[in-house]
Amino acid sequence: TASSATAGKRLTIGLIPADGIGREVIPAARQVLEALPSSVLAARVGFVDLDAGFEYFQKHGEALPEETLAALKSDCDGALFGAVSSPSHKVAGYSSPIVGLRKKLDLYANVRPVVSGAAATASGARRAIDMLIIRENTECLYVKDEQQHEGPDGKYALAKRRISERASRRAGEMAFAMALQRDGMRRLMDDADRTWKGRPKVTIVHKSNVLSVTDGLWRETVRGVHTGNAAYRDGVDVEEQLVDSMVYRMFREPEAFDVVVAPNMYGDIISDGAAALVGSLGLVPSANVGDNFVVGEPVHGSAPDIAGRNIANPIAAIRSAAMLLERTGHAAAALAIYRAVDCVLAAGNVRTPDLGGSSRTSEVADEVCKHL
Amino acid sequence: TASSATAGKRLTIGLIPADGIGREVIPAARQVLEALPSSVLAARVGFVDLDAGFEYFQKHGEALPEETLAALKSDCDGALFGAVSSPSHKVAGYSSPIVGLRKKLDLYANVRPVVSGAAATASGARRAIDMLIIRENTECLYVKDEQQHEGPDGKYALAKRRISERASRRAGEMAFAMALQRDGMRRLMDDADRTWKGRPKVTIVHKSNVLSVTDGLWRETVRGVHTGNAAYRDGVDVEEQLVDSMVYRMFREPEAFDVVVAPNMYGDIISDGAAALVGSLGLVPSANVGDNFVVGEPVHGSAPDIAGRNIANPIAAIRSAAMLLERTGHAAAALAIYRAVDCVLAAGNVRTPDLGGSSRTSEVADEVCKHL
Ligand SMILES: CC(C)[C@H](C(=O)O)[C@@H](O)C(=O)O
Ligand SMILES: CC(C)[C@H](C(=O)O)[C@@H](O)C(=O)O
Repeated sequence: TASSATAGKRLTIGLIPADGIGREVIPAARQVLEALPSSVLAARVGFVDLDAGFEYFQKHGEALPEETLAALKSDCDGALFGAVSSPSHKVAGYSSPIVGLRKKLDLYANVRPVVSGAAATASGARRAIDMLIIRENTECLYVKDEQQHEGPDGKYALAKRRISERASRRAGEMAFAMALQRDGMRRLMDDADRTWKGRPKVTIVHKSNVLSVTDGLWRETVRGVHTGNAAYRDGVDVEEQLVDSMVYRMFREPEAFDVVVAPNMYGDIISDGAAALVGSLGLVPSANVGDNFVVGEPVHGSAPDIAGRNIANPIAAIRSAAMLLERTGHAAAALAIYRAVDCVLAAGNVRTPDLGGSSRTSEVADEVCKHL
Repeated sequence: TASSATAGKRLTIGLIPADGIGREVIPAARQVLEALPSSVLAARVGFVDLDAGFEYFQKHGEALPEETLAALKSDCDGALFGAVSSPSHKVAGYSSPIVGLRKKLDLYANVRPVVSGAAATASGARRAIDMLIIRENTECLYVKDEQQHEGPDGKYALAKRRISERASRRAGEMAFAMALQRDGMRRLMDDADRTWKGRPKVTIVHKSNVLSVTDGLWRETVRGVHTGNAAYRDGVDVEEQLVDSMVYRMFREPEAFDVVVAPNMYGDIISDGAAALVGSLGLVPSANVGDNFVVGEPVHGSAPDIAGRNIANPIAAIRSAAMLLERTGHAAAALAIYRAVDCVLAAGNVRTPDLGGSSRTSEVADEVCKHL
């Protein structure tokens, strides 16, 4: 049952479907949020439809309109973002709206749980996986500070990669805190239901054998979060992986990872790799988290090849909605969604094509609602 | 039989075992090179032992001594590099010798064939893979131009990522030329032996949805190599993949890739991922290629956990030696090594632990020699 602190409150969620299948999976997530019984979510949910995306850019000359940002800040408790298409050629003035959103709302960590379940295993994953990827979400190459120059041998271009102590510390804090929190949750579970059975562990990803200064700062700062906190020191193990080895090991022994913390670009790459291991990108949710705001976002892209056909898997978006609820103080409602999704996946009869089925996006959403 | 052009010539190979298992796999590769019968390699092979590595740095204060570079340039036709250890903390003055070697000898492309075979399949790979990764080898974040600064919120560090038209063009040239060459080779094979059955294809990896300037230049330059050459235009298909999707798709449908061309850092990450797909990093060779020199290098690292125990898989190093022969005009000798390795893998009784066996490094080398 919903806690009294949130009972009767209003929860306003900004919906930004953006491009491609974002326009199918965000409505599916909305449908599930609306179907939550008041026994698990006492707050009344309201929605605000907001614009952004590449298609919007093509019509209006901007990918992330000021009104969207203003509405998020003044009217919303959180938001759901769909997916954004990539221009197939360089387009002057265009800049990814999700990258902009992360920076402008200071959503400094991207939390990506990658968990295998019955359905995932059936569709190709071979092993139990229960990884939580914490991706630094504001800097690294994503500062997008790039210039092109003309040199004696032709054109060349330079991009800046920025790593700061502050951003590294915040990502590290999130990683260690989540490692302990996950451990607490696991203690409430049966041993048979637990994938990770060891002590909580954080794997720090970097490439400091090449980037000794930037990744050196990253690694030392994240390590510093561990050594500077008694609860982390006593309760959480730390290890390091070079990003190339990380991808290798993740494929060879994914069960060896608990919480993984990575700079922005490595985190982007690793989370797609991890998604492949659990059977489909269509299953993996994320939350862009800041101190004051959260934006749920499926890890998948806009999938132009299947857009508009009502066959995209809405589960990543639905799970992202649950992550949004979890982070806005509605844990019971989040849990109800996670469980309903797990039931649908375990039953296996209602599945989109990415999982080997032939169900439609809307049928999966309906089915999840039935299990709430 | 060896071609008359190379008969009687001398082939001098620099050996740089460097750290860890590099000291076990390079001698194994040397043993195989020495065992080549004169019917396949008419050149007399000589070796020059050269220093480099992190351990060397700890003793002598430099990781890539001038003498090594000088000897490579004046005395050697090519070289084999083992592996290099990464310092576990930041070490002033240390810089990776393999990265230095690539730059100083202008070895602008790193050619990494990732091919599944009987042994690979037995040890976990599920599908036929026959990918050739061309990794740009001189720039991107590997220019190692980094600085640390003090800001109002604490320390921050900046690294430069450089992408030039020239380096992109050279990597692109290599990719399209190799795509055609592979196709020529395949036409000589039985259909049943061919993994890739379509037209030659080059997949350009980038992240231009975020790095529109640097990766925009990369992508347009590599595309330009294709459109600017009639043989490439007529004979090779081109596609693009964002690096995150690339890692995802590579896991889901590795058989969909022929030649893959990537900027330095993405190439580093992708090739480790691809190695996981064929069962072991211990199988995957590479060649660092320039216009005037080639350095064979196993894709694996120095593996400190198993170093000194004579259990490292020498096949990646042995195959790297074959790539070196191929690139220095000794194709028949290279082929003899590739075939001998394939026989040993197919027989399956002599395997190192990474492939599920219990043979020693030296036993694998002996076995390969028997099949030459
Ligand atoms: C669309 C793109 C800019 C984005 C990213 O790279 O962060 C996406 O891949 C993601 O993972 O959310
Ligand atoms: C050792 C390291 C500097 C190197 C690289 O990143 O290039 C290695 O991972 C490789 O792939 O050859």
